[in-house]
Amino acid sequence: MGNKNLIARTPEPPYYAVIFTSLKRDDGNGYEETSKRMLELAKNQEGFLGVESAREELGITVSYWRDLNSIKKWKENSEHKTAQENGKTKWYEEYKIRIAKVEADYGFKSGDQ
Amino acid sequence: MGNKNLIARTPEPPYYAVIFTSLKRDDGNGYEETSKRMLELAKNQEGFLGVESAREELGITVSYWRDLNSIKKWKENSEHKTAQENGKTKWYEEYKIRIAKVEADYGFKSGDQ
Repeated sequence: MGNKNLIARTPEPPYYAVIFTSLKRDDGNGYEETSKRMLELAKNQEGFLGVESAREELGITVSYWRDLNSIKKWKENSEHKTAQENGKTKWYEEYKIRIAKVEADYGFKSGDQ
Repeated sequence: MGNKNLIARTPEPPYYAVIFTSLKRDDGNGYEETSKRMLELAKNQEGFLGVESAREELGITVSYWRDLNSIKKWKENSEHKTAQENGKTKWYEEYKIRIAKVEADYGFKSGDQ
């Protein structure tokens, strides 16, 4: 049942995805707390539709948004801006952010016909 | 140094992303071999630009493609179609696939100015 929230329940396309791919440094002081806090903050942003996340050596977080303006506002959120700065100076070895318009989606669920 | 390939070296946007998010079943007989084989096959498809992947409980694989036609051809590849069938009957509890047009990207690399 807890699984059900790991795959985001997004509305019908079109909507936007922010694909954030990152490699962390070894010393990640304060990373976990900030990461959790940013997730909570993002969820309360207008236009936020959902998020999916996984990390092995590479971390991938995909957040979904109603439109580009919602993404812009989230990027400019002041607490988020501080986290972005710490990301560069303290936590990340490297990252890439891609802004993409979701044009189509489909899925499968075991047990569904 | 091996890290350098984990974040895909994609060209300037626009290009396409296929965001594949999945929950696996407990019994994944043959999954690993097929997963590796599909990666090799995808890399040899025309229009393939790169791939990024991570799995915790949730698995996320984002593959990047030159255009929608490349994605369509990959989806219709016969060996890939067999794997897709096995994905439904054997490996996945649930998955979602989103086709998205990457409109912008930016990044950060420690040590770069």
